[in-house]
Amino acid sequence: MSSHPFYAYCKEALGDIEKQGRYRRFTPLSRQSMHYPVYDRKINAKEETPIIAWSANDYLGMGIEPEVMNAAIMAIQKYGAGAGGTRNIAGTHPLHEALEAELADLHGKEAGLLFVSGYVSNQASLQTILTSMSGNWMTFSDQQNHNSMIAGIKGAKNADCVVFKHNDLQDLEHKLANAPKNVAKLIAFESVYSMDGDIADIGAICALAHKYNALTYLDEVHAVGLYGKEGGGVSQRDGVANQVDIIEGTLAKGFGVHGGYVTAKREIIEYLRLAAAGFIFTTSLPPSVVAAALKSVRLVRQQNWRREKLFERIHTFQEKLRQANIPFIETKSQIVPVIIGEAELCKKISQRLLDEYKIYAPPINYPTVPKGTERLRLTPNPYHTDKMMDDMVDALKALLPKK
Amino acid sequence: MSSHPFYAYCKEALGDIEKQGRYRRFTPLSRQSMHYPVYDRKINAKEETPIIAWSANDYLGMGIEPEVMNAAIMAIQKYGAGAGGTRNIAGTHPLHEALEAELADLHGKEAGLLFVSGYVSNQASLQTILTSMSGNWMTFSDQQNHNSMIAGIKGAKNADCVVFKHNDLQDLEHKLANAPKNVAKLIAFESVYSMDGDIADIGAICALAHKYNALTYLDEVHAVGLYGKEGGGVSQRDGVANQVDIIEGTLAKGFGVHGGYVTAKREIIEYLRLAAAGFIFTTSLPPSVVAAALKSVRLVRQQNWRREKLFERIHTFQEKLRQANIPFIETKSQIVPVIIGEAELCKKISQRLLDEYKIYAPPINYPTVPKGTERLRLTPNPYHTDKMMDDMVDALKALLPKK
Repeated sequence: MSSHPFYAYCKEALGDIEKQGRYRRFTPLSRQSMHYPVYDRKINAKEETPIIAWSANDYLGMGIEPEVMNAAIMAIQKYGAGAGGTRNIAGTHPLHEALEAELADLHGKEAGLLFVSGYVSNQASLQTILTSMSGNWMTFSDQQNHNSMIAGIKGAKNADCVVFKHNDLQDLEHKLANAPKNVAKLIAFESVYSMDGDIADIGAICALAHKYNALTYLDEVHAVGLYGKEGGGVSQRDGVANQVDIIEGTLAKGFGVHGGYVTAKREIIEYLRLAAAGFIFTTSLPPSVVAAALKSVRLVRQQNWRREKLFERIHTFQEKLRQANIPFIETKSQIVPVIIGEAELCKKISQRLLDEYKIYAPPINYPTVPKGTERLRLTPNPYHTDKMMDDMVDALKALLPKK
Repeated sequence: MSSHPFYAYCKEALGDIEKQGRYRRFTPLSRQSMHYPVYDRKINAKEETPIIAWSANDYLGMGIEPEVMNAAIMAIQKYGAGAGGTRNIAGTHPLHEALEAELADLHGKEAGLLFVSGYVSNQASLQTILTSMSGNWMTFSDQQNHNSMIAGIKGAKNADCVVFKHNDLQDLEHKLANAPKNVAKLIAFESVYSMDGDIADIGAICALAHKYNALTYLDEVHAVGLYGKEGGGVSQRDGVANQVDIIEGTLAKGFGVHGGYVTAKREIIEYLRLAAAGFIFTTSLPPSVVAAALKSVRLVRQQNWRREKLFERIHTFQEKLRQANIPFIETKSQIVPVIIGEAELCKKISQRLLDEYKIYAPPINYPTVPKGTERLRLTPNPYHTDKMMDDMVDALKALLPKK
């Protein structure tokens, strides 16, 4: 019990995190489905105040789409609140199979597999792949890959990993060329990177993969729903989805619901289905979550106006920032990073935005981003009005340090 | 692409799994919330047939409790279908904090932490704990621990692990006594073991932990909701919850919804909250899932009649099996394993139950259980009527090999 050294270790670690200004305290927020992006911020046990959220990952607002909410509600009424078992034991609903087929079709792949989250889909799939063939693998992993991919890669203890410079094709080719011939190669990368909002050249990476016979594993979590004629991600937009071996995505961001998935040729999906522990030994997603996600994917595929509206809003906001001389990273994605460059200041500006301006944009500090690049990561969505944007710009003008 | 050796490997592996009789094909089932444990079995694109499920882990039927379903529906209407962000970025709803407080209170602990699944709660918590203190840990892990705990323990590469014989206190003490003095010790174990349905002597294990200054990590996923005066698990029933350092549980079995959690003293929970990657870098559970789980936990705590009804049903079913001379493992838990002892036969009986008797009880084969102990794992719940039980007993009498 309390005499165990772990208790003292925790207390000390928490003290250190506090000293480094890295102690995270969450901000409890209730999204108002009728007034997105308005959330109610809980002030104390009794009081709430409305705020405008500028950082949510429900990029298209699909989570508050009435048809999506109704699909979830109908499924709860018919099938109950949970799945009640693993996929193998009473937990496969026809909806799970329908959604897996829909996602495979979205990405032009033969098959799909659902996981309880995007994190688990990356971790479990990569670890399972890289543990196969006696671990005789070498992974080429983009320097900015998400923690979930790194967890999967590191989880495969016998497989080697080489990190290549972020989105640097020369460095990647150099490392591929120098790798032993007799190891199986895998390139793991993302399309849209969450923190800088920059976008990989998927076609060029696949060309290198082809040249050096490497398998490609592409994380499209920040892209599905948003890019391509049906929201199939950057790989669809660029017409290169068929060159990627495994496309991974999430149902929790552009599709506004919950869960993760991979799509690929049938033998790969079947192998993961039968071998990935993180898929096998866990209760499946509730039918209501799957029903909502299926409705959302179908709507997003058909309704290109949602993507047009999103990017119109993003471009409008970027233009307002430019006009106001507010420095931000010029991206071609939905992510608008406003660099602050110092952890304490970033935290303070975020807190003042919340308290004084009723605007929610949490500080993104080390270790999520490198020191010196601390930032507010803003994600305008179709429901951010011109007025909300002007208020945000005015608040930033008032709070950012003068040059 | 397809010339990569992984494609051929997958095909060969799938062929091997098929040859070994281990190829799993899922049975798509729609639970009927109004007639649990009746499910509709999908036969083809157009046809369904009702079956009685005997293997679901929604042990109390809380997933079809109208108050639980209504809590989910109300939350969807108010807050939308998904959480829209990680806990740190717009994804902490006041409901998350309320459920964490409720679960901590249930187990008599200072704090609780939600994860997207019970699997992730075990994997992420154990890996994070065992990676702390430079990995200077030795884990004592019960031989029959669930894959999710093993994944967390193995994920901590620098920490040592010793497996002790299942529920064998002598073997555990022997191994504790022989361990180096200067390593931090952790005992990882379960209360109710899923496949045999046997129950650990938590108090005795904690006494050993106390003697050898080991931290205790207890998985109560098959016990929460079902044991103790408020459903706090076997540790509550035995009055020893305060002797366990970390109690882990699920919202997807006895509580009938989705998600996992850990509870412990505040410094441990805070450390996990700030350090566990599987908690930090993932979209939080949808507010509707959390609302349903919170309602379920509150009902289950108050309504002891649910537990009484469950065990009355289990005892009735066990007595019917005895009367019919059908061999099963006599347990004191909700799990009734009927041993078949041979993989192909187990599969065949399960298939005939489904096709001829409209009864769903999937085969549990190696590697989930040791070879020679292949079984049907039956979980009667409060909604299984005497008639359903008699039908099941008659079917087993007809299908089990004659002695």
